[in-house]
Amino acid sequence: MAELITIDDPADPRLADYTDLTDVELRRRREPAEGLFIAEGEKVIRRAGQAGYAMRSMLLSAKWVDVMHDVIDETDAPVYVVTPDLAERVTGYHVHRGALASMQRKQLPDAAELLRSARRVAIMEKVNDHTNIGAIFRSAAALGMDAVLLSPDCADPLYRRSVKVSMGAVFSVPYARLENWPRDLETVREAGFKVLALTPGEKAVSIDEAAPHRLERVALMLGAEGEGLSAKALRAADVWVRIPMAHGVDSLNVGAAAAVAFYAVATGRPQD
Amino acid sequence: MAELITIDDPADPRLADYTDLTDVELRRRREPAEGLFIAEGEKVIRRAGQAGYAMRSMLLSAKWVDVMHDVIDETDAPVYVVTPDLAERVTGYHVHRGALASMQRKQLPDAAELLRSARRVAIMEKVNDHTNIGAIFRSAAALGMDAVLLSPDCADPLYRRSVKVSMGAVFSVPYARLENWPRDLETVREAGFKVLALTPGEKAVSIDEAAPHRLERVALMLGAEGEGLSAKALRAADVWVRIPMAHGVDSLNVGAAAAVAFYAVATGRPQD
Repeated sequence: MAELITIDDPADPRLADYTDLTDVELRRRREPAEGLFIAEGEKVIRRAGQAGYAMRSMLLSAKWVDVMHDVIDETDAPVYVVTPDLAERVTGYHVHRGALASMQRKQLPDAAELLRSARRVAIMEKVNDHTNIGAIFRSAAALGMDAVLLSPDCADPLYRRSVKVSMGAVFSVPYARLENWPRDLETVREAGFKVLALTPGEKAVSIDEAAPHRLERVALMLGAEGEGLSAKALRAADVWVRIPMAHGVDSLNVGAAAAVAFYAVATGRPQD
Repeated sequence: MAELITIDDPADPRLADYTDLTDVELRRRREPAEGLFIAEGEKVIRRAGQAGYAMRSMLLSAKWVDVMHDVIDETDAPVYVVTPDLAERVTGYHVHRGALASMQRKQLPDAAELLRSARRVAIMEKVNDHTNIGAIFRSAAALGMDAVLLSPDCADPLYRRSVKVSMGAVFSVPYARLENWPRDLETVREAGFKVLALTPGEKAVSIDEAAPHRLERVALMLGAEGEGLSAKALRAADVWVRIPMAHGVDSLNVGAAAAVAFYAVATGRPQD
């Protein structure tokens, strides 16, 4: 059972994990360097725990102590009880969800390790918007992707906003980073995957015609909103696929495109 | 060719269409009542014009006069040239996109009229978030839905935020409001449509098994984020369909779910 510690000094060094949460640039550097991430809100904190992340500490306003009593009972980490006003002074914003936890990162698995047991993999290149990366993880989890691989310049899936938008799906879909981009796509291919690049280009084949759900092992690669995949990533792919579009619309937003492509890749259709 | 009018008084009554744009409640009432909507940014203003909406006036900062010269040449509406600071004082926010236009609404078509020529229709119940409604229109346009029908409590597709998120797709996909909800779903059925309700419920059949792309005329009904469809809307449907989900995830976000369902409904798969 955790110790409940009331804190009333915003400068208390025990709150260091929670300072300046609204400073994206600062947090983006600090959190991976210090091996932590922030889970926000009851649901996300519970999911992080269930996924096996160790808790460093929790920051609660008093009225959340009851709601979180089972989590408090099970952890050895210190639980800091503060006023909403103090929480705001430390973090830089009004913590609507009333509960924050600082969680310990785990070592990321090797891409090769993930690829051994996976059949459907999403690969993202330079998706550096935290909302988009969270939304894509949520869809990947729901639509049956087994793993996610990230190019070196993708945003951090464990950044607070990504975690929140993903509804905790960043904890349930395993992911790894590819160090050498796009060279490491070779590893994916060597593991028996066909590498599909999602692109609106005219040379791409319609994803329904490509029928990726019939392939044994599929890696679907997608790029950032607006830019799409780089030329070198496109060159490294086996097949270019596009989502068939109507009404002269140039593109879907990246979250919608990812969801459609995951559905096309992951759903074995019984009637086929 | 439009008249260029420099205005330096934020209280000038000619700017009335643009006042307090950040007051969502106020604008939500005012705009339909006064028969106008606001298009923001070069691309969206052009698309509104191409879709046949008449311009009431335009508000530009000086450096946008050049960029918009062809639009200015073609309209008879007054063009108000103001400083960025004055634009901010009138509208209530910093107008990043530098150009706003007040456009005249058109009379919405009858649902029955839209249904005559359409084959794939999206029906929304109580989607009252402007971002979601814009995202759904963008996907509906891209993925080949012919028309959209809205329950009486759906948000306004022509609200500034909806228009922007839709990338102008609210101009290209025709839509109508159903007055009596859910009674008017009968009209949809009488027009030869099978009414599919999208719901995560266990009684629903998987959308890939339902194979809606094989149906001659399909109306796909979806509800708001979180709540989903009401019991009475579900009762009024012909078939309940669900998107097959994995990893114990409870739901997709409404934009992702709509995109997947539109794809399943709209894309005739050549290999079938």
